[in-house]
Amino acid sequence: MKALFLNCTLKPSGKTSNTEAFIDQAKSNFADLGVATESLRVADYKVAFGNTSDEGDGDQWPEILQKIYDTDILVMATPVWRGDRSAIAKMVAERMDGIMEEGNDKNGQYPTYNKVAVAMIDGNEDGAKRGIAAMLFDLNEQGFSIPVNAFSYYVGKAGPGKSYIKAKGDKHEFTNKTLLYMVHNAVDLAKKLKKQPIETNLNKLDKKAKEMSK
Amino acid sequence: MKALFLNCTLKPSGKTSNTEAFIDQAKSNFADLGVATESLRVADYKVAFGNTSDEGDGDQWPEILQKIYDTDILVMATPVWRGDRSAIAKMVAERMDGIMEEGNDKNGQYPTYNKVAVAMIDGNEDGAKRGIAAMLFDLNEQGFSIPVNAFSYYVGKAGPGKSYIKAKGDKHEFTNKTLLYMVHNAVDLAKKLKKQPIETNLNKLDKKAKEMSK
Amino acid sequence: MKALFLNCTLKPSGKTSNTEAFIDQAKSNFADLGVATESLRVADYKVAFGNTSDEGDGDQWPEILQKIYDTDILVMATPVWRGDRSAIAKMVAERMDGIMEEGNDKNGQYPTYNKVAVAMIDGNEDGAKRGIAAMLFDLNEQGFSIPVNAFSYYVGKAGPGKSYIKAKGDKHEFTNKTLLYMVHNAVDLAKKLKKQPIETNLNKLDKKAKEMSK
Amino acid sequence: MKALFLNCTLKPSGKTSNTEAFIDQAKSNFADLGVATESLRVADYKVAFGNTSDEGDGDQWPEILQKIYDTDILVMATPVWRGDRSAIAKMVAERMDGIMEEGNDKNGQYPTYNKVAVAMIDGNEDGAKRGIAAMLFDLNEQGFSIPVNAFSYYVGKAGPGKSYIKAKGDKHEFTNKTLLYMVHNAVDLAKKLKKQPIETNLNKLDKKAKEMSK
Repeated sequence: MKALFLNCTLKPSGKTSNTEAFIDQAKSNFADLGVATESLRVADYKVAFGNTSDEGDGDQWPEILQKIYDTDILVMATPVWRGDRSAIAKMVAERMDGIMEEGNDKNGQYPTYNKVAVAMIDGNEDGAKRGIAAMLFDLNEQGFSIPVNAFSYYVGKAGPGKSYIKAKGDKHEFTNKTLLYMVHNAVDLAKKLKKQPIETNLNKLDKKAKEMSK
Repeated sequence: MKALFLNCTLKPSGKTSNTEAFIDQAKSNFADLGVATESLRVADYKVAFGNTSDEGDGDQWPEILQKIYDTDILVMATPVWRGDRSAIAKMVAERMDGIMEEGNDKNGQYPTYNKVAVAMIDGNEDGAKRGIAAMLFDLNEQGFSIPVNAFSYYVGKAGPGKSYIKAKGDKHEFTNKTLLYMVHNAVDLAKKLKKQPIETNLNKLDKKAKEMSK
Repeated sequence: MKALFLNCTLKPSGKTSNTEAFIDQAKSNFADLGVATESLRVADYKVAFGNTSDEGDGDQWPEILQKIYDTDILVMATPVWRGDRSAIAKMVAERMDGIMEEGNDKNGQYPTYNKVAVAMIDGNEDGAKRGIAAMLFDLNEQGFSIPVNAFSYYVGKAGPGKSYIKAKGDKHEFTNKTLLYMVHNAVDLAKKLKKQPIETNLNKLDKKAKEMSK
Repeated sequence: MKALFLNCTLKPSGKTSNTEAFIDQAKSNFADLGVATESLRVADYKVAFGNTSDEGDGDQWPEILQKIYDTDILVMATPVWRGDRSAIAKMVAERMDGIMEEGNDKNGQYPTYNKVAVAMIDGNEDGAKRGIAAMLFDLNEQGFSIPVNAFSYYVGKAGPGKSYIKAKGDKHEFTNKTLLYMVHNAVDLAKKLKKQPIETNLNKLDKKAKEMSK
């Protein structure tokens, strides 16, 4: 079983990312359950703005998308900026719309059906819940099942202040608790979906919808 | 298998509710899968504002909460007002916070663990996605698993205009398609969770979080 | 010059409201500028759910609406619940839609044109910015001008924790700073609009829009 | 008097932008009031992700920022993607945080104080109000005053469908009406602020906040 983290920090590798420190905490929790993990910073890739799976012209989104298709569990991880997920996290959400064009012939399910998604967000202050709600909604439309208690976050008091690393978010009990819930529930649901895939036939339902709408 | 609809229209029974017409469409889809359905209008009950499971003094929320505990699938259904779910839907979300206080001794799971939740929203214009994102986030924190493609909506063009009934939302193909996806995926996941309940032990994880945070 | 606070706490008078303590801080700042203040708890009134200015049947919204029409500055004040404004604050926003039906014959301006609105929000954790954005948007559509830096908030760290009173929000420098900005800018703009009302003639523009749309 | 439009379409010049067609409609309304207009597509510039006014290394944000400092009225214009403003619009909002670091010595006001901001958004379906609320909130914190009725939008019915150009959004009466309100109110407030600048002294208030918080 594999979990892929998309780190949507604005900073490329080499610069300190609080979100990466938060991801490291999650990774060790996944490892405890025998789940292999991989993480990448989207800012390290040349990702084009757009809404398709390949915008051409050197676009590196297809590399990331392949990793999404190869994982069982997707963890969207982002810092809070302006009280919401980062612009990079929003860009990723827009690119993932391409997934919905790729239903298979057999039952119309997108390639992400039978995968599980969860969300992590950290900031110095306010904005976690708006960001999580947006991420989970997008992932849900784009083919992922959402396990119960599918998120974890750290934010500090109103105004400028310390972020995850300096605030010792890794010792903040509420954040650790929700992180453990998230990890365990993600693995639980991913196992269920692996053993017994979703039976919904979207091609059939598309036909039925057409008939119902006459 | 049972599905419960909470209709969060602002209007008590006896007045036309577009959301009720939309719910009727969903009910027939659930019936096709052999799922029993029940719906109620929250506006018919004397529900107190608050954040606990019983605010006393004639509060009728406990009656609704019991129905939530008795169902397998919860469908939150609301009209759009001001580009978001209705105030009644928000009031319901606040009251459902009481659920998180009721983890059992055995594994700490709330009474809603192993239940599935989905969302429906309709309006004359704009606001569906914000409302859905908020509802699914709340339900997810309050113990529900969210199946893939867990929502359906109808909204019309920008500005004043026809709502679900007059706009013939029941013949709007996109709305019917997403409704069918929602119903079939809800039943699929509810069956999985019934057959094989979630194994996460929240009590153990609470302890582990405490240790991690020292 | 007058400022009216609508306290959208879920708790009626007699129970401790953190939002009221926050309002008290704002009141003293308004007093320093010679502005008279009044506040009320919406929970003390029998306000019906709905979207008109009078829902009949003992609805007490018209009493509150009259106070809104009599003030120069409206301050929407709410606790955070579920990462957003309270259900009562949402209910108030829905009732204020009635205002948009009351454009006058002369220039079509709603009774709230030439009034100023700002927003305050407090909670134990996360949700301030989503709540403020929703409130300011609603007030802006419903006829209010929004001065620069039109809000103040207090929230604590992620998870359960102290609210405004116990957290000594009245000594939190960021909250005090934004509160002072909010109060001073509200008064500055209210004075400008009093001296020189908005000249926009909505009736004329309605006609022009009709012509443009042929 | 000048109005600057930031077109946050994902598509660089040369590709059809519905948002540009919507902007053209707004421009002609501004021209009727004798206001000079300029628009640019952010996608034409090499703008770095970040939160400062200059991220170095060929970052072209400073060119755009200078145009913002040179205008009286800023119009944020964006398509809807995923039920919210575009990732480019979010990126712009994040870059504009740098403005708040540039308070002057005299009264601490940011360079944007005494400027007016409004928002336009268009899409094939749902998401306008969430996007507008986010944009107006951000602009308000970043130093802009928000005139009454400060926005306009076009969105179509739920699901895939025509966008502004093909849907003839330029003939949609509600959109034209709100656009005229937006333009006229923006000019009205910009004139007031030009004639009589905001008197709030942020440096003084910062000091007072420090004292209040001891």
